Amino acid sequence: MTGRWVIISTERQKRPNVFRIEHVTPLGPEHCPFCAGREDLTPPEVLAYRQNGTAANTPGWDLRVVPNKFPALMVEGGLEREAEGMFDRMNGVGAHEVIIETPDHDKTLAAMSEAEIERVLYAFRDRVVDLKQDRRFRYILVFKNHGAAAGATVEHTHSQLIALPIVPDFVREEIEGARQHFTAKERCVFCDIIKQELTGGQRVILEAAEIVALAPYAPRFPFETWLLPRRHGSRFEEAAQQEYEGLARVIKSVLMRIDRALERPAYNLIVHSSPFSEDTAEYYHWHLELIPKLTKVAGFEWGTGFYINPTSPEEAARVLRDARV
Amino acid sequence: MTGRWVIISTERQKRPNVFRIEHVTPLGPEHCPFCAGREDLTPPEVLAYRQNGTAANTPGWDLRVVPNKFPALMVEGGLEREAEGMFDRMNGVGAHEVIIETPDHDKTLAAMSEAEIERVLYAFRDRVVDLKQDRRFRYILVFKNHGAAAGATVEHTHSQLIALPIVPDFVREEIEGARQHFTAKERCVFCDIIKQELTGGQRVILEAAEIVALAPYAPRFPFETWLLPRRHGSRFEEAAQQEYEGLARVIKSVLMRIDRALERPAYNLIVHSSPFSEDTAEYYHWHLELIPKLTKVAGFEWGTGFYINPTSPEEAARVLRDARV
Repeated sequence: MTGRWVIISTERQKRPNVFRIEHVTPLGPEHCPFCAGREDLTPPEVLAYRQNGTAANTPGWDLRVVPNKFPALMVEGGLEREAEGMFDRMNGVGAHEVIIETPDHDKTLAAMSEAEIERVLYAFRDRVVDLKQDRRFRYILVFKNHGAAAGATVEHTHSQLIALPIVPDFVREEIEGARQHFTAKERCVFCDIIKQELTGGQRVILEAAEIVALAPYAPRFPFETWLLPRRHGSRFEEAAQQEYEGLARVIKSVLMRIDRALERPAYNLIVHSSPFSEDTAEYYHWHLELIPKLTKVAGFEWGTGFYINPTSPEEAARVLRDARV
Repeated sequence: MTGRWVIISTERQKRPNVFRIEHVTPLGPEHCPFCAGREDLTPPEVLAYRQNGTAANTPGWDLRVVPNKFPALMVEGGLEREAEGMFDRMNGVGAHEVIIETPDHDKTLAAMSEAEIERVLYAFRDRVVDLKQDRRFRYILVFKNHGAAAGATVEHTHSQLIALPIVPDFVREEIEGARQHFTAKERCVFCDIIKQELTGGQRVILEAAEIVALAPYAPRFPFETWLLPRRHGSRFEEAAQQEYEGLARVIKSVLMRIDRALERPAYNLIVHSSPFSEDTAEYYHWHLELIPKLTKVAGFEWGTGFYINPTSPEEAARVLRDARV
C-alpha cells in the first residue's frame, strides 16, 4: 500500500534475547567488544586511524571501523527481486559498519576533543568514498545512536553506516521537496532557510564561520537541531577541510549545550547527504539532524505521521543559546 | 520540504517537567484522575455509559469520555492559515478526548471482559459519529497507548481520540495506495490481502467469523498485528454489531497471546478508518493495527523511513497462534 520496505533481519535474531524487550545492560570496560585490546571480538577492521607501526586488529588505534557483527544487511550477493503473491521482496544486500570513535570506553562524543570529533567525520567521509564505488548501492546512511533510549545497544561510543540498494523514503521525500522548490524559484531551499533564519535569529542556536545550528521551524521533537554548512553543497563527503573542522566544533558545542540544559539525554544524530545515483548538486544541501530523545513516539505519531512537540523551536533555541558551556 | 505538519503544543507545556525526559511515575489509585470518585479532576464528561439514575460527573459509570486536560489541539476557533516567511502555519484546531475504559484502576484492556471491550468500541463509534458533524474536521484518529514505553503517561487504562482539520500523511499514503490498487484491478487491496493470507496461512494469527488477525507481510515491528474485518467496509463507525462483538473477542485474544508469549509489553493500538470528506467506500477497508513496543526506533529508522525488524512475520504469527490462552 505505502511502498514501504522493511528489513527482516534474521541475522540479528542471533543476538541474545531477541523476543524480549530490548533492555541494555552496560557491559563495562572489562567485557566491551569496542575497547582496545579486544579487537578479536569484532570482525576485522575495514579502516583504522592508527599510531605508526601498529598492526591491523591490534591495539594502537585512535578510531576503528569494523563490519557490524549482527548486520541488518549482507554485503554478498544480488538483490534477486521477486514477487511473493501480491507482495514484493528482495535480498537484504548492503553494508552495515560500526565506527568505533575512540578506544576510551568512558568518553562520549560530547566529551571528545574537537580534533577527535573531526577524526570521526573523516572516517564517515572515507568509508562513504570507498563504499560508493560499489555500484549496487544507491544511498549510504551515516548515523549515531547515543544512549539506550535512542537505540544504542553497546555503551562504548560509536556511530554506524548502512549502505542501501535503494534510496530511502525519507531521503526521497526531502530531495523531492528541495527539487520542487528549486524548480519554482531556482534557489536551494536550505540556502533560503539559512538566510531567513539568520535574519530573524529567533531559531538560531549557534552561528559559526562555516556551520550554522538551527532549531528547524517545524521540529518533530523538542530540541531537534539541524547543523547546516553555510556554503551550498549536496554531498557530505565532498565538504572542505574547514567545514569538517567547523562541524566538529559545532557538534561539540551543541552536544555540551544539550547536556547542560537538559538531563544528558539519549539522542540520534543523522547525516543527510545526496544519493550517489542522482545529480542533486544544484538543489540539495547536506546537513546533520540531531534528535534528543525527550518524548515518546506514541499512537498519535504512528497513526498520522504528524508529531506533537511540547517545546517551540524558539524556546528550544533560546535555551540552547543561553546554555553556558 | 516534506510537507510534514507538527503540532507545537504550548498547552502541554503546562504539564510538570516538560523539559525533562518523560518519566512516568505510576500514580496509584489514591491519586489517579481517572478513578471513580475523582471526576472533578477531569474536564466534564462528553459521554458516559452509566448505571441508571447516576448524575453526570459522579461515580456510577462503566465508561467515561472526557476532553484531555492537556489537549494537543483546541476545539475553539478557526484555522487562520498564514505564511511566516517561507513557512506555513495554522492554528491547532481540533478535539482531543480521553476514553476512560473502566472505573477499575488495576484492569488492563487485556484483562477486561469481551463485553467491556465491546463497550470501549461503542464509545469510539459514538464519539466519532458525534464529532464528524463538525465540518472543520477531516479525520479522527482513535488510538491507545498502553504502558510507559508506548507513551502512556497515566497508567489507568484509557484510549484517546484526536479530531484533525487535515488528513494525516500516513492516512493519505495508505488511502492513495489502496486507491491505486483499485484503479488497476477493481478490487480492494485489503480484501486481496485477507484472501491471500487465509489461503497461505503462514501469517495468520487468528481466524474468527467476523475478524481476522494477521502478521502483515512487511511488519515494521516484531509482532505487529493487523485486525481486519472480513466484510469490506471503509468506516469503523459503520461496522455491524456482530463486527464490534467479534473485534472485541479478537482484541482480547490477541492481547492475551502477546502477554503470554512476550513480557506483557507496552503497545500502541490504532484504528485505521476512512476520512469523512472522501468517498473511499469501494477501495478502503477499515482495520486496527497493534504495535507491541519491543524494539527501539533508532537513527536508521529516523534517517530512512525503513524499519529493521528482527522477527519475521511468519515466526511472530506462529508464536502467537501457539500461545496458550
